[in-house]
Amino acid sequence: MTDTLFSRIIAGELPSHKVYEDEKVYAFLDIHPLSRGHTLVIPKEPAETIDRLSDDSAAALGRALPRICRALLAATGARAFNVLQNNGSGAHQVVMHVHFHVIPKYEDGAGLGIGWPAKALDTEDGRALARAIAGKLEAG
Amino acid sequence: MTDTLFSRIIAGELPSHKVYEDEKVYAFLDIHPLSRGHTLVIPKEPAETIDRLSDDSAAALGRALPRICRALLAATGARAFNVLQNNGSGAHQVVMHVHFHVIPKYEDGAGLGIGWPAKALDTEDGRALARAIAGKLEAG
Repeated sequence: MTDTLFSRIIAGELPSHKVYEDEKVYAFLDIHPLSRGHTLVIPKEPAETIDRLSDDSAAALGRALPRICRALLAATGARAFNVLQNNGSGAHQVVMHVHFHVIPKYEDGAGLGIGWPAKALDTEDGRALARAIAGKLEAG
Repeated sequence: MTDTLFSRIIAGELPSHKVYEDEKVYAFLDIHPLSRGHTLVIPKEPAETIDRLSDDSAAALGRALPRICRALLAATGARAFNVLQNNGSGAHQVVMHVHFHVIPKYEDGAGLGIGWPAKALDTEDGRALARAIAGKLEAG
């Protein structure tokens, strides 16, 4: 995997507004925020997408998220927020290093815009698909 | 916290298309999917929002996510996907039990719609805000 903006931020080669760091995790303000307090939480491990992330890094990221969210709510006064993690350029990923966006949603509407064109699940397809996913999980 | 649809699914009182379960985590197909394979990954711990989730549950959720994403990609053939976790009714949360949506994004556009009205971060405000969040984190 090649260097990205984020690996250079972790290495201290580029500046960032850091809010948190531990052995496996780094968090800093997005410099193109969707709303005030928009924060990026990233693993130090340089995985491109979350499906390629190691168990240990993923657990450390998961553990850090609630703590960072609590601090963000306390510092901004926001009461609602979205956590978003995009994988692949087709899904709005720009920097090819795993990152969770934590995006406060304010009462004036500032924050993440979400489109939700949901349809009902077809029961037969659901049954077959759940079996297929569970089978892949059991296989490893 | 009162019972939700999800606590009743975990307890087996309501049916679900389960794809994964361990001691702390449960995953199943969303019955109103945004795209084929739309999966919900939830902690068994009944926290309403991620900022209220325990370290242990959050780490277990984090650890499970890459495994579930890998299986979902393998079973559906999707190449891009979004992971979204909404907190608060103002941020599109409907069921008041923490849940991560894993939503395949297909080449025909099926999947999560994202609005991204980003602005540039004000450097002075960024410096002050990063300090405030870091301070809240250090305070615990």
